[in-house]
Amino acid sequence: MRLSVVAERMRAQQPLVFCLTNVVVSNFTANVLLAAGAAPAMTNLPGEAREFAKVASAVLVNLGTPTTEQMHAMEQAVVGANEANTPWILDPVAVGALGERTDFARSLLPARPTLIRGNASEILALAGFESAGRGVDSTDSVTAAMDAGTDLARRYGSVVAISGPADAIIDADRTTLVHTDGLALTKVTGGGCALGAFTAAMVAAGDEVFEAAVSAHAWYGLAAERAWSRSRGPGSFAVNFLDELGEVTPNDIDSVRHEKH
Amino acid sequence: MRLSVVAERMRAQQPLVFCLTNVVVSNFTANVLLAAGAAPAMTNLPGEAREFAKVASAVLVNLGTPTTEQMHAMEQAVVGANEANTPWILDPVAVGALGERTDFARSLLPARPTLIRGNASEILALAGFESAGRGVDSTDSVTAAMDAGTDLARRYGSVVAISGPADAIIDADRTTLVHTDGLALTKVTGGGCALGAFTAAMVAAGDEVFEAAVSAHAWYGLAAERAWSRSRGPGSFAVNFLDELGEVTPNDIDSVRHEKH
Amino acid sequence: MRLSVVAERMRAQQPLVFCLTNVVVSNFTANVLLAAGAAPAMTNLPGEAREFAKVASAVLVNLGTPTTEQMHAMEQAVVGANEANTPWILDPVAVGALGERTDFARSLLPARPTLIRGNASEILALAGFESAGRGVDSTDSVTAAMDAGTDLARRYGSVVAISGPADAIIDADRTTLVHTDGLALTKVTGGGCALGAFTAAMVAAGDEVFEAAVSAHAWYGLAAERAWSRSRGPGSFAVNFLDELGEVTPNDIDSVRHEKH
Repeated sequence: MRLSVVAERMRAQQPLVFCLTNVVVSNFTANVLLAAGAAPAMTNLPGEAREFAKVASAVLVNLGTPTTEQMHAMEQAVVGANEANTPWILDPVAVGALGERTDFARSLLPARPTLIRGNASEILALAGFESAGRGVDSTDSVTAAMDAGTDLARRYGSVVAISGPADAIIDADRTTLVHTDGLALTKVTGGGCALGAFTAAMVAAGDEVFEAAVSAHAWYGLAAERAWSRSRGPGSFAVNFLDELGEVTPNDIDSVRHEKH
Repeated sequence: MRLSVVAERMRAQQPLVFCLTNVVVSNFTANVLLAAGAAPAMTNLPGEAREFAKVASAVLVNLGTPTTEQMHAMEQAVVGANEANTPWILDPVAVGALGERTDFARSLLPARPTLIRGNASEILALAGFESAGRGVDSTDSVTAAMDAGTDLARRYGSVVAISGPADAIIDADRTTLVHTDGLALTKVTGGGCALGAFTAAMVAAGDEVFEAAVSAHAWYGLAAERAWSRSRGPGSFAVNFLDELGEVTPNDIDSVRHEKH
Repeated sequence: MRLSVVAERMRAQQPLVFCLTNVVVSNFTANVLLAAGAAPAMTNLPGEAREFAKVASAVLVNLGTPTTEQMHAMEQAVVGANEANTPWILDPVAVGALGERTDFARSLLPARPTLIRGNASEILALAGFESAGRGVDSTDSVTAAMDAGTDLARRYGSVVAISGPADAIIDADRTTLVHTDGLALTKVTGGGCALGAFTAAMVAAGDEVFEAAVSAHAWYGLAAERAWSRSRGPGSFAVNFLDELGEVTPNDIDSVRHEKH
């Protein structure tokens, strides 16, 4: 299948992505979704999360800056998502480096996230493998985390996306590497977190989670590559990236190199 | 009265706008206020909100991402605002689409907000009329929400501002439409939310709430129109919009088409 | 010592700055740290804060929008920082203007912050001197707050940095003024708050807190000065500022005028 098929559907459907995410990246995340053609919506109230997860097109659970109340809302959102077959994405930010969220992230796994997106250190730690991460930085390579990704995929039926110099998309039986030069995304905060939300929108629009994830990473990485080539530094990059997300064409997306691993 | 009169006063007075607002737009909201010449300040502590509402020039209560603690602070802020005759603005984000905040927003109405600002779906839902909104998107037209606006204005003594292709400013006896091409404000998050804060600053500076609201929507929409004409996409638009807010002149504001409905 | 020595070390070490900060500026703060070469990380969970403060390179406690839970986390972070000799920076946002945070800020002082950064009104209020601040604006001059700064420095062993037209860096025995034209930093939200985080990164990299603070203010103010000269308004300034932070060279930093007071 051409990578652009899901992208075109997403732009046509404008899926509503319910984001339970961290305070650092919530603005950037919402703007990424809008720039790409999706619709963001957020609430962190436990009393609203379950019902809203049922009507949303997809749910993002990002553990960047959880509060006690937000964690309750996340649990409710996951219940609602599963009740309504709404796809839900888990982004285990800083899992491994910080204790309470590590326990919490693992407690969500039996609810079988549709997709898990993180850097190599986070995926290793979530799966219970050895990792060397500090905070949100990955100090492990994508390759080193692939077995952990496969393990998570087999145990929980999830697609696993590992961000890095090349992004790895993994399910129980296969791994695809997506090659873009998205390094600039590490120069601003939220590059990975917003990718989780964007991937949620693509999964909502796609027939198949794995393909949607590959397409999402191709589009997103390509927009970053182009934006960086026009930027003086990280400030102008963040601005140009939002502009580029809307300008990338289906042909551009189809041109991104990706391969079975 | 010329529309620019309130604008010039606002720039001279630099009103302090106490914003109880959502985490997605708090940065953009503060920057909009600063760019226009007002001063933002925020606290979500119930123990600080009542006293601070008494010394602030205006208070914004925006229901985008409430927490239990923030809702307590909002209640205290409304009490303080009314004790000190500080104007307070209610922005009923996603009311109608989400249950808990809908109840909460309605519980604030007897405290008679000075102004209510929302999109058509939110105004319809707040008034208890039929609406079709989803999340923060309006799926109803401004015209369809005018009766609901008038109803709210009569019941609670509020001015009601409905954002859309043309913005409607409504009180018990009259409706004015403000015509600008502010469509780009829907391409970034916080376009409407920051307008609520900006309108609060203008109401603080004006003698008359209705006129201040008309003037605010003219200035804001015009800045958006000009910013969009110089932008490649939503990223550069958000940047240019902040720049334009400070560059719009009194003559520019006076030129905005507005009319009795 | 040349001012640039600490800057070069900071870029080489990429210190991890654990920020407990306010929701308005958290994105800008993280991007400032990344643009300068440091690494931001945030959690507001009391159960994570103590351990994380032990492994972080520095801790920032910024009182802009505290919640009950975040204040518990701040207390834990301060305990952890002192246990591990991690430098910690206190930014007493709006202390003096708002009651609950004023009490809270004073309750943290016996834990002896490594550095305190604020505007003149905040420093005056924190020390218990007379002040005229409103919200986050300073209505007092830097000179008027120097005695309060010296008083805090002597009582708590802290370096005190007062932001203004010239920034004053103060310890028990000396005061240095750093001269840059950083006025544009008051035109966007977070100019001061992000400086607190940036100073934390520099303190982590330096041998000596006072020198690190002087160097931080020189670099930061110079980047602001250069960014403003290329900007149309506050929107483009915020973008250019992030770009400039990475472009300022050691020679540039050494050229900033600073003097004993």
